[in-house]
Amino acid sequence: MSYIEELVGLLGSERVTTNPTVLEHHSHDESYHTPHLPEVVVFPQTAEEVSKIMKFANEKRIAVTPFGMGSSLEGHVIPYKGGISMDFSLMNQVLEVRPQDFLVRVQPGVTRMQLNKELKKHGLFFSVDPGADATVGGMAATNASGTTSVRYGVMRDNVRDLEVVLADGRIIRTGSMTAKSSSGYHLTGLFVGSEGTLGAFTELTLRVYGIPEATMAARASFPTVQDAVNTVVDILSAGIPVARIELVDERSIRQVNLFKETDYPESPTLFIEFHGSEQSLQHDIEFAQGIAGEHGCTQFLFETDSKARAQLWDARHNMAYAFVHKSPGKKMMVTDVCVPFSELADAIVNAREAIDRSGLDGAILGHVGDGNYHVILMIDLNDKDEVARADKLNAHLVEYALQRGGTCTGEHGVGIGKMKYQRKEHGAALDVMQSFKQVLDPNGILNPGKIFG
Amino acid sequence: MSYIEELVGLLGSERVTTNPTVLEHHSHDESYHTPHLPEVVVFPQTAEEVSKIMKFANEKRIAVTPFGMGSSLEGHVIPYKGGISMDFSLMNQVLEVRPQDFLVRVQPGVTRMQLNKELKKHGLFFSVDPGADATVGGMAATNASGTTSVRYGVMRDNVRDLEVVLADGRIIRTGSMTAKSSSGYHLTGLFVGSEGTLGAFTELTLRVYGIPEATMAARASFPTVQDAVNTVVDILSAGIPVARIELVDERSIRQVNLFKETDYPESPTLFIEFHGSEQSLQHDIEFAQGIAGEHGCTQFLFETDSKARAQLWDARHNMAYAFVHKSPGKKMMVTDVCVPFSELADAIVNAREAIDRSGLDGAILGHVGDGNYHVILMIDLNDKDEVARADKLNAHLVEYALQRGGTCTGEHGVGIGKMKYQRKEHGAALDVMQSFKQVLDPNGILNPGKIFG
Ligand SMILES: Cc1cc2nc3c(=O)[nH]c(=O)nc-3n(C[C@H](O)[C@H](O)[C@H](O)COP(=O)(O)OP(=O)(O)OC[C@H]3O[C@@H](n4cnc5c(N)ncnc54)[C@H](O)[C@@H]3O)c2cc1C
Ligand SMILES: Cc1cc2nc3c(=O)[nH]c(=O)nc-3n(C[C@H](O)[C@H](O)[C@H](O)COP(=O)(O)OP(=O)(O)OC[C@H]3O[C@@H](n4cnc5c(N)ncnc54)[C@H](O)[C@@H]3O)c2cc1C
Repeated sequence: MSYIEELVGLLGSERVTTNPTVLEHHSHDESYHTPHLPEVVVFPQTAEEVSKIMKFANEKRIAVTPFGMGSSLEGHVIPYKGGISMDFSLMNQVLEVRPQDFLVRVQPGVTRMQLNKELKKHGLFFSVDPGADATVGGMAATNASGTTSVRYGVMRDNVRDLEVVLADGRIIRTGSMTAKSSSGYHLTGLFVGSEGTLGAFTELTLRVYGIPEATMAARASFPTVQDAVNTVVDILSAGIPVARIELVDERSIRQVNLFKETDYPESPTLFIEFHGSEQSLQHDIEFAQGIAGEHGCTQFLFETDSKARAQLWDARHNMAYAFVHKSPGKKMMVTDVCVPFSELADAIVNAREAIDRSGLDGAILGHVGDGNYHVILMIDLNDKDEVARADKLNAHLVEYALQRGGTCTGEHGVGIGKMKYQRKEHGAALDVMQSFKQVLDPNGILNPGKIFG
Repeated sequence: MSYIEELVGLLGSERVTTNPTVLEHHSHDESYHTPHLPEVVVFPQTAEEVSKIMKFANEKRIAVTPFGMGSSLEGHVIPYKGGISMDFSLMNQVLEVRPQDFLVRVQPGVTRMQLNKELKKHGLFFSVDPGADATVGGMAATNASGTTSVRYGVMRDNVRDLEVVLADGRIIRTGSMTAKSSSGYHLTGLFVGSEGTLGAFTELTLRVYGIPEATMAARASFPTVQDAVNTVVDILSAGIPVARIELVDERSIRQVNLFKETDYPESPTLFIEFHGSEQSLQHDIEFAQGIAGEHGCTQFLFETDSKARAQLWDARHNMAYAFVHKSPGKKMMVTDVCVPFSELADAIVNAREAIDRSGLDGAILGHVGDGNYHVILMIDLNDKDEVARADKLNAHLVEYALQRGGTCTGEHGVGIGKMKYQRKEHGAALDVMQSFKQVLDPNGILNPGKIFG
């Protein structure tokens, strides 16, 4: 009997498949990394089923790679050792909303948009927003963040408790429903960001927020990237509690204009959002506009109404798609370093110079309030030279960030793409990480070949 | 040659001592837990010295217990296995202030007040405030928090990077200077709260905040504890960004009146602090006063001026000392559970009933914005029956909290006092914690007998 037949014995034939289309879907993510097929895809419905599969796979030394939406960007979900791709799409229930505790208990396959639709009924929202409609399980596993983390924190700040199935099938809970605890070692924070290499999440308790009384969006254009970044620095130093503050460079706006046939001013642009009371927003926006003015802002528009806000931010929302759809046959490489805030302006100027030097066509955008920025490159994987230049550019950006107290990945995670920088960034701490991996997954069945190689 | 002479060989005779007064000072904390002498106290000055001592102690299987200020409350620093008490008071330099990054790099022996004095020059402050003038190393090791965590987070939220010396002498760095990272496993959060059992911190990078433009303090008296707690629930649900919100019960106020010969109204009282702009504070305080009024508030006073604010909060600040100084010969037992916010009102009513049933004289106070509350008991350690009743009360409170999704310790930590509740709270996750301890400290030299027993 093949191990796949044994899996059918555990889950039934409906939820164990070797259908080629399904295998293909689980062989890649949204990036340039080389796909690889799993041998089988399973769709568990309970923690107990996940536990059974793990025990089985652990005994047989079969690789298990958790799969959420497959929207990650560093090859995280690609099952390079074949084996089982464990898809959480059938575990997609919102289990409990606790409005007074500002908490929600969910299954890992719930997507961000699905969750926000449910929360809206209670006047609440889930703050972490990585753009893609990712699953909360995948977002926890990569410690995702995005446009709102400047105000509401990253995934790790918003996970209170996890139910985790370990490689040997043990089911543990890592936290509680309280706002804080000093009891025992903080496992929640360690499992968040572990990219499926330490265990599979089968339930999450997440912190949510009340929908703000009022929201305002603004778009501000600047002569140079440096003017834009200096505006960000001054706005945040003044303590204006912006909810989002995004930089999109000239090249990116040009791409959106191409894609959407719009005529946005092709210059470095900040997209800002404010949350608060009508009254406080008025004050915040005037303050922000004043600061932008001091840095040569050439156009400052703002809107309150929800439709008008969406339109104002349209260029930001369409960024990734503008590149993907206008670059047929090419694949996306997105760099993702993060630097201390004081280094940001220089870092972005340096990144632009490095792109120009590389001869590649790259756009910069960033969650600049966190010191996190991306270079988007569309590359032709058949063009060896182009790939090499893109790799070199990525390495340069990482090197630059690490030398200034930064990190090789602010939000996308390590996967296989950032593996080669782990020793440089973490030094001897990498051995400590590896020893934790070894103790929890001695047979190396969980998402093998990621983070540590 | 005794091992103490060998230590002198490593550090010099000035910083290795067996002086009885010094040994006694390192034999206890501020609680009721039974003291025990170390064999020797060492005062390292650099990470390299700490590393040398660790390597030596690890080879010889000698216990090493890190010591900050000794202000912890669950027996954390008591060296029950004798050995070396490692005192960090000579490592007390503020190494670097980075105002634009809102970061400060410090040595572990820096105290909270010392740090704030230094930061004030830059218009900054460090937010975590456990009342006692603890060291930042000790605060990180217990994941301390306190009055301000409702707004600015707990210690774990405010530690960006740690330099840690492991049991075998390896020196690692766990984080970076960036606002966020998804690179590798999150070790920083795991070492924070590890109570000296996984390594010794020799440097910390901490997040700091700009001193608010304006501060306002308020004191509000209520007919019942439930009215006061309901006010807290409504204030926080309305999204008023209070910086501190503390509950002090009737019994506590009576003790302060006894101690300071004051005549504060002896009823449940909320102490609130607001940080913001002059304008926003006016709005916040009116809103809060309105809510308090709806819950039968009998007196609502507020002050802006710094001296007047201190006076208004005087009863809160003097709480612990009012008990300690008015209870000669007795020792303090402080319970420390934390519950989900929605459970708070019931939990505090239940705690009051349990105190009354126990026949003990106990006062309740709490960082109620976090769902965290303490019962302060002054107990006569020679009175076996009193000790037993106090233990039983503590156990009841823990049981109650755990049944409602809470934790046995919101901020003080496990030490030896909360060890017996670890299995109940963490279940199989405790084994995962123990396996990490085992892998990093196989000889069990680091603060032995704590957390796991
Ligand atoms: C256009 C675009 C924009 C993006 N922008 C951002 C951004 O701003 N910020 C950001 O952080 N990311 C961004 N991403 C990347 C991606 O959306 C995130 O990494 C997201 O968190 C992945 O979620 P997912 O559900 O797709 O997970 P997957 O890609 O399916 O999996 C990601 C990792 O999580 C593991 N995993 C999945 N489910 C579980 C589980 N239940 N238990 C344990 N491990 C699990 C997988 O094994 C894998 O290692 C972007 C992606 C795209 C395509
Ligand atoms: C009156 C009073 C009120 C209090 N209120 C609060 C409160 O509101 N909130 C709160 O959280 N706590 C409170 N506490 C408890 C205490 O102040 C905290 O636990 C504080 O964090 C202890 O710091 P410390 O420097 O005294 O550490 P210590 O007591 O010396 O040590 C505490 C633990 O940290 C370890 N440690 C110390 N230094 C290091 C280092 N460099 N590296 C690794 N481990 C180290 C020790 O081994 C020990 O396990 C209060 C205490 C008192 C007396």
